Amino acid sequence: MNYKSLGHFTALILLIEAALMLPALVLSFVFGEPDSTVAYLKTLMIILALGGLLWLLSKGEKANDFYEKEGLACAGISWLVLGLTGALPFFISGQIPAYIDAVFETVSGFTTTGASILSDVEKLDKSLLYWRSFTHWIGGMGVLVFLLALVPRSRSGAGFTMHILKAESPGPDVGKLVPQLRRTAQILYLIYIVLTVVNIILLALDMPLFDAFCIAFGTAGTGGFAVTNAGLGGYSPYIQWVTTIFMFLFGVNFSCYYLLLRKKPLSVLKDEELRVYFLVFMGCSLAIALNIRSFFSGAEETLRAAMFQAASIMSTTGFATTNFDLWPTLAKALLVFLMIIGASAGSTGGGLKCIRFSLLIKDLRSRLREMIRPGRIYPVRSSGKIVSESVLASLRTYLTAYVLIALASFLILTIDGKDLTTCITAVLACFNNIGPGLSGVGPMSNYGSLSVLSKLVLIFDMLAGRLEIFPVVALLFRTTWKHQ
Amino acid sequence: MNYKSLGHFTALILLIEAALMLPALVLSFVFGEPDSTVAYLKTLMIILALGGLLWLLSKGEKANDFYEKEGLACAGISWLVLGLTGALPFFISGQIPAYIDAVFETVSGFTTTGASILSDVEKLDKSLLYWRSFTHWIGGMGVLVFLLALVPRSRSGAGFTMHILKAESPGPDVGKLVPQLRRTAQILYLIYIVLTVVNIILLALDMPLFDAFCIAFGTAGTGGFAVTNAGLGGYSPYIQWVTTIFMFLFGVNFSCYYLLLRKKPLSVLKDEELRVYFLVFMGCSLAIALNIRSFFSGAEETLRAAMFQAASIMSTTGFATTNFDLWPTLAKALLVFLMIIGASAGSTGGGLKCIRFSLLIKDLRSRLREMIRPGRIYPVRSSGKIVSESVLASLRTYLTAYVLIALASFLILTIDGKDLTTCITAVLACFNNIGPGLSGVGPMSNYGSLSVLSKLVLIFDMLAGRLEIFPVVALLFRTTWKHQ
Repeated sequence: MNYKSLGHFTALILLIEAALMLPALVLSFVFGEPDSTVAYLKTLMIILALGGLLWLLSKGEKANDFYEKEGLACAGISWLVLGLTGALPFFISGQIPAYIDAVFETVSGFTTTGASILSDVEKLDKSLLYWRSFTHWIGGMGVLVFLLALVPRSRSGAGFTMHILKAESPGPDVGKLVPQLRRTAQILYLIYIVLTVVNIILLALDMPLFDAFCIAFGTAGTGGFAVTNAGLGGYSPYIQWVTTIFMFLFGVNFSCYYLLLRKKPLSVLKDEELRVYFLVFMGCSLAIALNIRSFFSGAEETLRAAMFQAASIMSTTGFATTNFDLWPTLAKALLVFLMIIGASAGSTGGGLKCIRFSLLIKDLRSRLREMIRPGRIYPVRSSGKIVSESVLASLRTYLTAYVLIALASFLILTIDGKDLTTCITAVLACFNNIGPGLSGVGPMSNYGSLSVLSKLVLIFDMLAGRLEIFPVVALLFRTTWKHQ
Repeated sequence: MNYKSLGHFTALILLIEAALMLPALVLSFVFGEPDSTVAYLKTLMIILALGGLLWLLSKGEKANDFYEKEGLACAGISWLVLGLTGALPFFISGQIPAYIDAVFETVSGFTTTGASILSDVEKLDKSLLYWRSFTHWIGGMGVLVFLLALVPRSRSGAGFTMHILKAESPGPDVGKLVPQLRRTAQILYLIYIVLTVVNIILLALDMPLFDAFCIAFGTAGTGGFAVTNAGLGGYSPYIQWVTTIFMFLFGVNFSCYYLLLRKKPLSVLKDEELRVYFLVFMGCSLAIALNIRSFFSGAEETLRAAMFQAASIMSTTGFATTNFDLWPTLAKALLVFLMIIGASAGSTGGGLKCIRFSLLIKDLRSRLREMIRPGRIYPVRSSGKIVSESVLASLRTYLTAYVLIALASFLILTIDGKDLTTCITAVLACFNNIGPGLSGVGPMSNYGSLSVLSKLVLIFDMLAGRLEIFPVVALLFRTTWKHQ
């Protein structure tokens, strides 16, 4: 481990966090919320002091020996630090009295999970609500990608940028849109900002501007924190349809938008993941609609509820317009299925990702065929191209890690004594960065009543889910921390 | 596909089934059960006619071109045929009126699952109860292995025997005890018979001889059909302890017993799977005991209930002495965990198997280390030896298949509208060949109320679980059925 690089990098992340917190500080003045103002000022002092100290300690030559393990560790550590420090305004202002709860809420924000320990969000200061939703927006595209977009080329070697992008960007392969990674990061953020602004404008037509900003942050990052206790159910059908569409759009691989910008719509249509994403979404929406039709009056209302919830869960946003915990088992099971599948690689969404799901099935089919006819080779293809063995190997490792972490988390959660559905869906909802689960952690409940141990496990799961397991798990290996 | 081989092989299996059904026919005379006698006679006629027809149709040269796909297809088809024909006595006698239910019960018997559609087993004729339990015993060690032990060497090429043993014997690697496979099969059956006889004698000391036979068959095959409605809860603590010990023993890899016979106790102690099996069993037993201590009076009763249930679920037997569906969540979750892990490879038990679980964790650790330090190689070792890449590759394929089949089965089951816990544990209990699940399919409930579609899915799962997925899934591939 190159500790100087790690320190330097963490210092940079802290400075960026401080800068990103400034709008919330300004808002606390505007809304006249003295408790929050003080909390933000104190937090900024702590962050700057910590960042400055790390910066001084890590001075000197470092950028050149930056390898896989530095990339993994930087991603893991910086996200942990973001959660621990981003929680301070909630804690210092006293509005979330327990620090573990504040950390849970903040990690849930940055990882775009949207799982909340709050039973009454409307009691929170508006500037805190803003910060809470803004963490979704930052976490959606990724703070490390943001750093990449900012840092001038000379400061960072190719190794540095490559490994960072690899560690934070979701999906089995790094989405390199253009040869220069910094340019890729800038394009990604540009698309992200434009889509978010359009979303804010469309929402502001029928809701308060403050709400429009917060809900758009939650939609763009596929987070899911609401700013009212009624959630998205309190807004008009128009708002719900707009949100459905944007939740779906933010779950699309951003390279599709880049191809559209480059005027290559045909390549977009050929993209296999987009097709899987769309078909699974439509299939599950319709099946859910059929299953829940007796709950609603009229086709529009039924379809709106089904498509909103399917888009919300599949994009791993986690907004709710209705208590889907009361739906029939098939509809709930389809939501659990969508929880696991998740959105597309290279989107802001979480979960296993459609492309992984599709590749797992194809890989299984090829391996079984080879078992039936030994000696023959059945390659796996995606969008017409042969998928390399190293991508498949990493995919299988990912599945193993996914299953074992989910199983272990589930077992620890059951110590609390909540029912099985609560424990299973709490793990799935946090690990896949969705937010609400079923039963005790359903859309009308919250995570506040869980034990500290359960919250710690779920914090780990949220981070592991957002960073696609390896950067977080790497922190637990001695190999990572060895010198050289 | 070599259809002649397949036909010849299926004919052999049918003839063996007919022979194995004779004791049940005799018992129906002894107990004076005319309905059953007629049913057995009719069944035997059908089986012999079918077997004879297949025998005639498949005459000629065939044994030499017997490859992987023939081995897989023979195993899959013959088990399917066993289920379809073994169900006839229940159906023809009218004691299980619906044929799908009779097939469910019989497949559940042969696959040593022990899931029942009967709400009142005591209403069944005793000769039928005997046949029902005897299917456990046949299925435990495997009818194909039985065939292997019988067939003289000259009749079968090395390819034949190898592929059969591979397809039916549980575990990631074929347990070749001695170089000659036929001798291996004989040794396995010898150990199986001796252990069963000892179990019968110990049980008969404190229960009727008929019950002792049936319960011993259920224990030896790790099946779990009881012959009274009270299940194992109706017998003395002595019987429960004996059964606990034997359920554990039948979940041990039989090669351990062979090593003991060869007076190599040290090699047994070094066996990694045995250690994992023992430690997981003891750990879960104690954790469950602590969790359920308020339900029982006294340490012996608590420990008996915990160890009995842990041994029953982990060995995938599925006997119950108490309604564990009422236990706290942690205890239930540990039972679900044991359901998935299962017994040892080369035992009569089902599930993922301890060795697979252990190898999956080690494989994950090695792959993660290689990710952290690319260029280095971290081999996976088991019992001191390096595990080959082909075994690991097959293991990963197995996990993928396991997860995808379980997920798909779960989704189909939810169409019935039963609660989520019922659907999840029904799939786990059938796929891992255990029997009882939780909630609607708990130890005091049964599978009778499920829809035909759900029963068909679970029949597929039971067969896939017993034959370790590949032989059953291979039947669904066009590649298997192509000529040459």
